[in-house]
Amino acid sequence: MKLASVRHAGERRVGIVSADGRSISPVALTAEEAAKGVTALIGKDLDALDLLSPIALSEVEIEAPVPRPDRNIFCVGKNYHAHALEFSRSGFDSSAAQGELPEFPIIFSKVPETVVASGAPVLIDPAVSPAIDYEAELAVIIGKGGRGIRPEDAMTHVWGYTIVNDVTARDLQGRYSQWLIGKSQDTFCPMGPFAVTADELDVADTTVTTWVNGEMRQNANTRDLIFDVPTIISTISAGLTLMPGDIIATGTPEGVGIGFKPPKYLRAGDVVKVQISGIGTLENRFAEARA
Amino acid sequence: MKLASVRHAGERRVGIVSADGRSISPVALTAEEAAKGVTALIGKDLDALDLLSPIALSEVEIEAPVPRPDRNIFCVGKNYHAHALEFSRSGFDSSAAQGELPEFPIIFSKVPETVVASGAPVLIDPAVSPAIDYEAELAVIIGKGGRGIRPEDAMTHVWGYTIVNDVTARDLQGRYSQWLIGKSQDTFCPMGPFAVTADELDVADTTVTTWVNGEMRQNANTRDLIFDVPTIISTISAGLTLMPGDIIATGTPEGVGIGFKPPKYLRAGDVVKVQISGIGTLENRFAEARA
Repeated sequence: MKLASVRHAGERRVGIVSADGRSISPVALTAEEAAKGVTALIGKDLDALDLLSPIALSEVEIEAPVPRPDRNIFCVGKNYHAHALEFSRSGFDSSAAQGELPEFPIIFSKVPETVVASGAPVLIDPAVSPAIDYEAELAVIIGKGGRGIRPEDAMTHVWGYTIVNDVTARDLQGRYSQWLIGKSQDTFCPMGPFAVTADELDVADTTVTTWVNGEMRQNANTRDLIFDVPTIISTISAGLTLMPGDIIATGTPEGVGIGFKPPKYLRAGDVVKVQISGIGTLENRFAEARA
Repeated sequence: MKLASVRHAGERRVGIVSADGRSISPVALTAEEAAKGVTALIGKDLDALDLLSPIALSEVEIEAPVPRPDRNIFCVGKNYHAHALEFSRSGFDSSAAQGELPEFPIIFSKVPETVVASGAPVLIDPAVSPAIDYEAELAVIIGKGGRGIRPEDAMTHVWGYTIVNDVTARDLQGRYSQWLIGKSQDTFCPMGPFAVTADELDVADTTVTTWVNGEMRQNANTRDLIFDVPTIISTISAGLTLMPGDIIATGTPEGVGIGFKPPKYLRAGDVVKVQISGIGTLENRFAEARA
């Protein structure tokens, strides 16, 4: 099932996207529920939802599937083999103690307010960082919380998936050693346009592709993940209780801007498109922040 | 003004603690407002609050001043000169690229659900980590949000202060390279018992003292901070909009458990007491997590 969070006639709606991708059937929700985005549907029987009349997708404004997560987004660093090598060799890797391929997952976070919709501008502030880079990622949406989740049970905690672009200020990522600031600049987490329920995707065999201004930069399969989704969930939840609605971005493949010599940083006007087979295409234009 | 969040007769109350420290005058708030803790008072004129009848502090259950922050708590690492040296030399410092004294603030986060009250147990799960350590810290509560806050304006964004114990699983802090997991284990952020408004404290000259089972372990003055509060606020907010209610833990002084050879880790039954002059004493017993 493909889901979206949208605005229509001034109200936020969460709904099911039709098979032909042309319309959305909003679920009958209170405004408070709808404000949560698709995670308002966690725990509900999706086959027995009270649906309102379909609306053409062309008539709505798409929002991020989870417009404002309840807490920081969990992210995994250096989690594709080829990307781990390109990042370690880029000179920006402040986690170098782990070597070129990490022995253990590297987990950091982005503040919830970084989230913006597909189609929304991502802001570059030249006074803050001239070294802005993209990172296309498959993101997991947790449905059932838990602590001490075993890898063999982990997939039963996954409710769905979406796409994020883990936009990063490379200079800040290196300068502050811990990655929170470089990863949490305003508007640095485009998400969407859709979320899909867990049954729609084989997370162990999914393709992630990125284009910058039409030029393909990343194109990989989740088969190349160093730590798979069950391992990530088990690692985070060992002593930290995961909550329904938590979002975990699983890492980016090879082909980011700092993989090139010299690095290809994003500039105002650039358009970054991330496609994940089975979910959709997340597209955002980068724009200069107004002073 | 000294403030607290408490439970009394089954309801959460936020109130003003009397000068003699014996009673609390609850503010007339809705249940939804009171659930936010003391940050419900941000933006209100504290001298013109609608107060209910005072209640003896002995009759209430103290809660954390901010029981569940709106997003992850910002924390600063290696921010006292003497502690930066002890940490760099401990072998647990995955940020070693910065050298013994950091050139720039090291900013990471703890998930909001780590927060527990003074008096609440902090859980040690031997299956997850045998290397639990304390970190006494002065925490800033942001009152006025903002982006690009200049150091000279930063103190006008501070609404108040409280005490946190930035409890850390040292082995996980090192193993995962980024510190989020080692810092975000369940119950790992004791906070309180009180918050004070900004006018109550000279943040540039405040003493932080820690005892473990009555033995003094940390005793330092914020004069020894490497990056002062204005610098921290300016650094975080450069491109990441700070929000009212954000909490920033400013770092811990010398004297943590891994500063000793061999390290003195916490065990079930240990009591950690953190005192900050002008705020109060945060006291928590460590207990084994039930399997």
